[in-house]
Amino acid sequence: MGNDKQTLQVTADGKLKHLLTLEGLDKSFVSGLLDHATTYLRHAGTLPARDFGLQGRTVANLFFEPSTRTRASFELAAKRMSADVLNLDVNSSSRAKGESLLDTIHTLQAMQVDVFVVRDAGDGIPEFIARSVQPHVSVLNAGEAAVSHPTQGLLDMLTIRQHKNRLDGLKVTIIGDIGHSRVASSLYHGLHLMGDNEIRLVAPPGMQPDMGRFPGATLYEDADEAVSGADVLVALRIQRERIDDPSGIPSEDEYMVRYGLNAERVALAADDAIVMHPGPMNRGTEITGDVADGPQSVITQQVTNGLAVRMAVLSAAMESR
Amino acid sequence: MGNDKQTLQVTADGKLKHLLTLEGLDKSFVSGLLDHATTYLRHAGTLPARDFGLQGRTVANLFFEPSTRTRASFELAAKRMSADVLNLDVNSSSRAKGESLLDTIHTLQAMQVDVFVVRDAGDGIPEFIARSVQPHVSVLNAGEAAVSHPTQGLLDMLTIRQHKNRLDGLKVTIIGDIGHSRVASSLYHGLHLMGDNEIRLVAPPGMQPDMGRFPGATLYEDADEAVSGADVLVALRIQRERIDDPSGIPSEDEYMVRYGLNAERVALAADDAIVMHPGPMNRGTEITGDVADGPQSVITQQVTNGLAVRMAVLSAAMESR
Amino acid sequence: MGNDKQTLQVTADGKLKHLLTLEGLDKSFVSGLLDHATTYLRHAGTLPARDFGLQGRTVANLFFEPSTRTRASFELAAKRMSADVLNLDVNSSSRAKGESLLDTIHTLQAMQVDVFVVRDAGDGIPEFIARSVQPHVSVLNAGEAAVSHPTQGLLDMLTIRQHKNRLDGLKVTIIGDIGHSRVASSLYHGLHLMGDNEIRLVAPPGMQPDMGRFPGATLYEDADEAVSGADVLVALRIQRERIDDPSGIPSEDEYMVRYGLNAERVALAADDAIVMHPGPMNRGTEITGDVADGPQSVITQQVTNGLAVRMAVLSAAMESR
Repeated sequence: MGNDKQTLQVTADGKLKHLLTLEGLDKSFVSGLLDHATTYLRHAGTLPARDFGLQGRTVANLFFEPSTRTRASFELAAKRMSADVLNLDVNSSSRAKGESLLDTIHTLQAMQVDVFVVRDAGDGIPEFIARSVQPHVSVLNAGEAAVSHPTQGLLDMLTIRQHKNRLDGLKVTIIGDIGHSRVASSLYHGLHLMGDNEIRLVAPPGMQPDMGRFPGATLYEDADEAVSGADVLVALRIQRERIDDPSGIPSEDEYMVRYGLNAERVALAADDAIVMHPGPMNRGTEITGDVADGPQSVITQQVTNGLAVRMAVLSAAMESR
Repeated sequence: MGNDKQTLQVTADGKLKHLLTLEGLDKSFVSGLLDHATTYLRHAGTLPARDFGLQGRTVANLFFEPSTRTRASFELAAKRMSADVLNLDVNSSSRAKGESLLDTIHTLQAMQVDVFVVRDAGDGIPEFIARSVQPHVSVLNAGEAAVSHPTQGLLDMLTIRQHKNRLDGLKVTIIGDIGHSRVASSLYHGLHLMGDNEIRLVAPPGMQPDMGRFPGATLYEDADEAVSGADVLVALRIQRERIDDPSGIPSEDEYMVRYGLNAERVALAADDAIVMHPGPMNRGTEITGDVADGPQSVITQQVTNGLAVRMAVLSAAMESR
Repeated sequence: MGNDKQTLQVTADGKLKHLLTLEGLDKSFVSGLLDHATTYLRHAGTLPARDFGLQGRTVANLFFEPSTRTRASFELAAKRMSADVLNLDVNSSSRAKGESLLDTIHTLQAMQVDVFVVRDAGDGIPEFIARSVQPHVSVLNAGEAAVSHPTQGLLDMLTIRQHKNRLDGLKVTIIGDIGHSRVASSLYHGLHLMGDNEIRLVAPPGMQPDMGRFPGATLYEDADEAVSGADVLVALRIQRERIDDPSGIPSEDEYMVRYGLNAERVALAADDAIVMHPGPMNRGTEITGDVADGPQSVITQQVTNGLAVRMAVLSAAMESR
């Protein structure tokens, strides 16, 4: 990422105005953001954290791709920050027919929307919006094409840090549909930023990454080899909606055998390795049920951390005004 | 219902953890719940009742079948109990393709959802969910296949009690599509629980009930006979979406003549009989407009009671923690 | 409009019970309403206005036509007035199959909905609903067929008044699909009510108005002539969804040349003319980008005023109880 984009998302005095990508963020800023997120964690069953930082403010969730979990997470994060929330599930195709994207944004901005949470299948859309809004308005990327999903990267890092007590010197294996994954990109950016980590990638045919986007990472052919001795295992969701030609990709059974996380494969990793998945999971293909629900799985903890991270990001955006 | 399910929905000290069915609930508990609901009733035009019992809590409405009125009723009940509300209208078919139902539930639970309000076309789904959630989380059945709709049963009983001052010794005639009705089941369960009531059923061809589900009730062939001298008349909605083979069922005109509630038929009941319908009504088929809007109709009062009952159920679920 | 409808929407002591149309409203009442709306305006970036006038009340948005901006505007207006908001996006076709419109309304009313915000493609629907609700309930027209859109008329007037300091003696040119426009009707009603304004209409073939609905206005053939010397230029959206036979209407290119607002055409108007559009805009057809974004455009200000006007209308409706 150029300095240009970095200047856009961080103010001159180091505050987060927009969250477009983890690339280029300051390491201590990210540490502080994760620290802040932990203050929003509560034991299950107790009252969720409540913060009044966005009281009277309006957060608009603009989802141009369907989403249940990320939209719910951002919606609850905004409500628990005391914001008013406007949900707008917009079909991308209707966007083409109707008014321009910027007119939609400017219309909502004229209603005093303070934060736009944007999910879009188009590369560059969050940045495009961020460049067009008024100075006090923030844009949060909630998933951008196969490019970036920064709050996912943050929640993954928080989860790793909780278990490993560091974000440095770790062996992290990301396995699956890396070629179409914004989750892999953002986790890579975060880990690259925070320390000297060994990042191993392994992907099935038809899902191979452009290694130019993962400098310093190593591409493996064999999943078992990639998993051996790893501290962190990350299975990815197969992004069928982004696969143009599915003829080359493995069958579900073959995927499970060669790339899925099953107990035997997980046993090759470090004894205290943790197992992650961004969800929603295809059980039996990307991961077996016993691994997903097993003692090394931190998958539901990722969800809990996601809400806390989004509250912290909303708080940071408000402080940048 | 087995003791098993009862143990699931009621705690050892008699508190309501989940509301799956009215079967097997304690009679005095149900009386108390109806009493509590009446404290949420207000005169039209005055401020609705507000309770702070769920302040800071999150209620997720998970509707796998389309619904306007029940979803609105639960949404307003939760908001007036001061909860944060998350609406998730999920298409059942998308559930099959995507993640498992339990993964969806566990994901939302990890966001600190405290209460799941679930409507589903599948038999046993609310119980299935209730068995999988954490101990502090409650599941409320908002309509389950043709099996159970317990808050509807409660609101029907509250309405009857308001007019008859008792839930015992009543002649109650349920008329219509009993075979596909969860409303009939839950009202039967409630009336059976609360007293010694004479329950009369009459159903058109293709809509006949399995009488094994209505022990002690009497099935009539002739609607006029079933209605004669009754204290309470309940017309049901034809559940076309649950009728596999519509060839055997009567035409709309024939339905009205043989099974519809018109003024002549209602006149056969007790002079002070009340007329009920769970809505939405097919006027001119299940009931005539003059009966639906007439002096014996308590149909809109059922709606008002429904909201009060749902507030009371939310309150009870919170107290079971 | 007959006195009949006026008696319906305004109480005997001059308070606004329903807002169905601007026709027949009292001039000083409308002035006061616009004054009240200005108290809800805030500088961009500061906290939006918050009023507690609807605290504990429930506003139901019943949109039988799809809408993003008007629904968002009413939703935020209600939330900033501290109301609980229920969004019901109902497909008109499903209305035909299911329960009657009045049963839906009476059901929601029985849940203590205080205000219905209604958008419908059918002529007369808001009045029909207003006639059937209880005395304390208000109905606000959020767009009715090609007939009326009173809050749009109010926001347009507020915008004009802010720039011209009067609503009298103005030359106002409305250009575009007047035949299918409720925006043109309501603006005409408002301007006609507030003063002696010269209202000029110009419409393409297939979009011609029934001039019986615009007494005193002048229909022009030529857009340049209609625009000459005008104080206010209002471009309209082409209402394709209301055009039965599109064969007679101009192509997009021809529309732009003959009826679109471009810099050359705008230059024919008064030097201090303002340019308005209700949105969403078809850029390049109804208006050029440089005009829409130029110094004379007040289009985003219209959006901001719309939210303020809707807050004022909600407040007025509550005061009529």
